Amino acid sequence: MSIENFDNVYQANRERFLEELKEFLKFKSIGTEPECQRECQECAAWLKEHLNAIGLETRLLETPGLPVVYAEKKLNPTKPTLLFYGHYDVQPVDPLELWQTDPFEPVERDGRLYARGAQDNKGQLMYFIKALEESIKNNMLQYNVKLVIEGEEENSSRGISAVVSEWSDLLKADVLLVCDTDTFSPDCGTISMGLRGIIFMTVKLSGPRMDLHSGAHGGAIPNPATELARLVSTLHDADGRIAVKGYYDQVDPVSDEERKLIENTPFNLEDYTRTVGVRPEWGEPGFSPLERIGFRPTVELNGIHSGYGGPGAKTIIPAEAFAKITSRLVASQDPEHALDLLKKHLESHAPAGLKLEFSEMGAGGKALKVPLSSAYVKQATKILEELFDGKVYFCWQGGSVPIVSSLAEVSGAEPVLVGFGLTEDNIHAPNESFSLEQFRKGFIFASMFLSAASAK
Amino acid sequence: MSIENFDNVYQANRERFLEELKEFLKFKSIGTEPECQRECQECAAWLKEHLNAIGLETRLLETPGLPVVYAEKKLNPTKPTLLFYGHYDVQPVDPLELWQTDPFEPVERDGRLYARGAQDNKGQLMYFIKALEESIKNNMLQYNVKLVIEGEEENSSRGISAVVSEWSDLLKADVLLVCDTDTFSPDCGTISMGLRGIIFMTVKLSGPRMDLHSGAHGGAIPNPATELARLVSTLHDADGRIAVKGYYDQVDPVSDEERKLIENTPFNLEDYTRTVGVRPEWGEPGFSPLERIGFRPTVELNGIHSGYGGPGAKTIIPAEAFAKITSRLVASQDPEHALDLLKKHLESHAPAGLKLEFSEMGAGGKALKVPLSSAYVKQATKILEELFDGKVYFCWQGGSVPIVSSLAEVSGAEPVLVGFGLTEDNIHAPNESFSLEQFRKGFIFASMFLSAASAK
Repeated sequence: MSIENFDNVYQANRERFLEELKEFLKFKSIGTEPECQRECQECAAWLKEHLNAIGLETRLLETPGLPVVYAEKKLNPTKPTLLFYGHYDVQPVDPLELWQTDPFEPVERDGRLYARGAQDNKGQLMYFIKALEESIKNNMLQYNVKLVIEGEEENSSRGISAVVSEWSDLLKADVLLVCDTDTFSPDCGTISMGLRGIIFMTVKLSGPRMDLHSGAHGGAIPNPATELARLVSTLHDADGRIAVKGYYDQVDPVSDEERKLIENTPFNLEDYTRTVGVRPEWGEPGFSPLERIGFRPTVELNGIHSGYGGPGAKTIIPAEAFAKITSRLVASQDPEHALDLLKKHLESHAPAGLKLEFSEMGAGGKALKVPLSSAYVKQATKILEELFDGKVYFCWQGGSVPIVSSLAEVSGAEPVLVGFGLTEDNIHAPNESFSLEQFRKGFIFASMFLSAASAK
Repeated sequence: MSIENFDNVYQANRERFLEELKEFLKFKSIGTEPECQRECQECAAWLKEHLNAIGLETRLLETPGLPVVYAEKKLNPTKPTLLFYGHYDVQPVDPLELWQTDPFEPVERDGRLYARGAQDNKGQLMYFIKALEESIKNNMLQYNVKLVIEGEEENSSRGISAVVSEWSDLLKADVLLVCDTDTFSPDCGTISMGLRGIIFMTVKLSGPRMDLHSGAHGGAIPNPATELARLVSTLHDADGRIAVKGYYDQVDPVSDEERKLIENTPFNLEDYTRTVGVRPEWGEPGFSPLERIGFRPTVELNGIHSGYGGPGAKTIIPAEAFAKITSRLVASQDPEHALDLLKKHLESHAPAGLKLEFSEMGAGGKALKVPLSSAYVKQATKILEELFDGKVYFCWQGGSVPIVSSLAEVSGAEPVLVGFGLTEDNIHAPNESFSLEQFRKGFIFASMFLSAASAK
C-alpha cells in the first residue's frame, strides 16, 4: 500500500482513534505517586482490554511494582517477530497551577491534543496500536508481534527491571521497535541511535533537632540549607564540567562519523533558544549543544528543598535540606560505578557536624548505542525517506528509556527507535501536548513498518 | 514588698492569669500570613479591651500594616515614665505535622504551656501586663506607664517602623523595658546588652520557560537549582566566614570587658549541643560560639526551594529556584550598606544565561548595644540579684527585635532588656512552649521593677 492508502485508512478512522486516545489519557497513571497506584492498575486493565478487543492475546505480567501489559499476535512462525515497547505511566503534573486545562481532561486546541502523556508515551503508543489494529484488519501484517507496555518508565522501570531477565523466552524477537523519542522537526524523520542511561539519588543533610531560630543560633552551628548548597555546588566546575573524580574515564570519545551526522542535523540555535528560554551555552567546553546532550554525561539537580518558602521572612536555620539528583550516562559508562563515584564524591565533600544520608538511590538502565549498520535501522530509514522526501536524520537522544537496553539484550532483537515528538510538546512539564499531525505521521510510519517485508 | 509578697499575689491569681494567657494564645496572629490578617486585627482588639479592663487608657495606633496597641497609665508627672514594648504577632507554624498538639489550642504539660507564642512574645508580654495590673490594684506603681504592642515583629516590624519616628511626643519616656529575650538557665537572671540587627531578601534565579526534561536538555543549558546552589555557596568561605567583600569593615571588635563577661556566662557546650542537636563548632575562626552569636554578623539561608521534592524521581531541569536569605548585623553595621554589599556580591557572582531577581528585600532594625553604665540596667541588676541569689549575667543576644533601637531613639529612654525564655522553649519552631515557673519569675521581676523607686 502507498502512503496515500495508509493516510486514507487514518482519515477514515481519525475521530475514533482520537476518542480512544482521550479515553486512555484520562487515567491518572502517575506511577511514582502512591495515591495513583490504583488508577495505574485500572489504566493497565483498560489497555489489556483494549488490545484484546483489537485481536491480540493479552495478559498482565506481574512485577514487584506495577504490572506490565503483554499482548501478542501470532501470525506465522516463518515470519520475523517484532517486539514493541511502550509505557502507560506518565510524569507527575506539578506545578499544577501552570496548566491551562486539567492534565487529565484531554482537550484539542490548534491542532494539538493537550494532556499529561499526550505525547510521552500514551500518544506515541496509541498510533502504533492503531496501526497494528488496522494492519491486522486489512491483512497487511508481516510480523509476529509482541507488545510490552510497562507502568513505571518514569520511575526508572523499577518493576520490569527486576524481572525482565526471566522473560527471555517470552520476549525473543528479531526487531525491537520503540516509539518514545523526538524528531527534529515536523518535516523530517528522525532515528535515534542512542539513549542516555540514568542513575538517581536523594541526598539529605540534617543536624539541628528542629528548625532553629536563626538569630539565637546563627553563627554557632552549620546551616543544612547553606551546607547542602555548598555540597552540590562541588559537583561541577565553573565551566559546567562534572567535577566528580573519574566520571569521564569510561566515556567513549565522539567519533568523526558521529560528529559529522550530528552536524548535519537541522538544529537551529535560535529556535531552540526561543522554545526553551535559555541559550544552550552552558556545559562542557569543546562540545556543541547536541554533542553535550547526546554523547556526554550530566549531573542534574532535579530539585532542592530546605526550610521556609512562603511569603515574608521566617528566620530559621532549617533542620534539614534535601536534593534530588539524577545523572545521565553515555555508552560504556557502568551505572553502578558512576553511582559509586557520585556517592563517594558527596561523602568526601560533606560538611563536618551534619549528617549526610542517601536514599532512593539506584541505577536505571545503561546507555544504548545502536550500530549504524543495523538492517532494521536501514528499513526504517527507507520508510522515513519515502514519508519525508529523503529527509531523515540520525540523532543521539539525551533522554533515557532505561529498559530499552535490557529489552534489546533479553530479546536478542535489534533496536529501532523512531519517534514523532517535538520540543514544543513540553513533555515532563506543564501543558504537555502532541501535534495531531505528528500522530498521523506516526500512524503511517508504523503501518508501513508493520506491512514491510522482513529486512533480513 | 518582698519577693514573698509578690509571689503570694501571683499564687492567688495564677489560675486566672493562665486562663487569660490561653485566651490570648488562641488567636492565630501570624502577622506574615495574608489569611491571618483578620485574626491579627481581632487579637489587637482583644488586647486593647483587656488593657482597658485593667485600668489603662487605650487606643489602636494606625500603621501601614497591622495596628499597634497603645495603652497608658498616667500616675504623676513627677514620676519617671516607663515605656514597655512587646508584640502580639507570632511566627508561622509550619511544618504543622511536627506539632504534638494544635499550636493555637494551648495545653499545659509537665509544667509548661504549649502553643505558638507561648513564650515569644505573648507569654512574656502577659506576665508584664499581669504585674502591671496588680501593681495598679495594690497602689504599688512608681512609674507613669506607656505600652506599645505591635503586630509585625516577626515581619521586621514593617508597619510601626514606617511611622514610629512621628511618635516622639507620644512615646517620650525615661526607661524602655522589653521582655522578649532569654535567660541562660532557670536559676539566674539575664540582662541582654545587645541585639543583632537584620536585613532580608528573596533571591530568584530563572531562565527555562518551564520545567524542562533533564534528559532532552541536560548538558546544554544551565540548571537554575544547581546555579542557585553555586551562587549562595559563594556567601561563605570554607571556614564559615562571610565571603562578601567588606562585610566585616563596619563590625566593632569585641572589647576585653565584653569578652570577659561572655566568658563568665553559664554556657555549657554539652547542654547546648544536646538541646540543639549540633555541636557549635561551625563559623568564624577565632571566636567562641557566644561571641559569634553576640558580636559577629551572619548570613543565613532560611530556605531554598527549586524543582521536584516528592517521592521517586522527576527528571526535570527546574524553571526557577529561589532562596530566602537573612543576615544578622552587629553594632556599627549600617543595614542599608550591608544590604547593598550582599546584593552586589550576588550580582557579581551570578551565572551567565540565567535571570537574577531580588524581592522582599529590606533592612530591619539596626543592632542595639546598651552601655554597661546605664542606671536602669543597674536597677534591673539589683532586682535580679535579689531574685536569683546574686546570679545575674549579661549577654549579647543573637536575635533581633528590629524596632527596639528605633524606640530607644524616638522615646529618648534607656533600654533595659530582661527576659525569662529558655532554649528549650523552641521559639520559631514546632512545639513552642513556656515554662510556667519562668512565667512566675517574670511576673515577680516585673512587679518589683514597677514598684521600685526611680533609679535616677
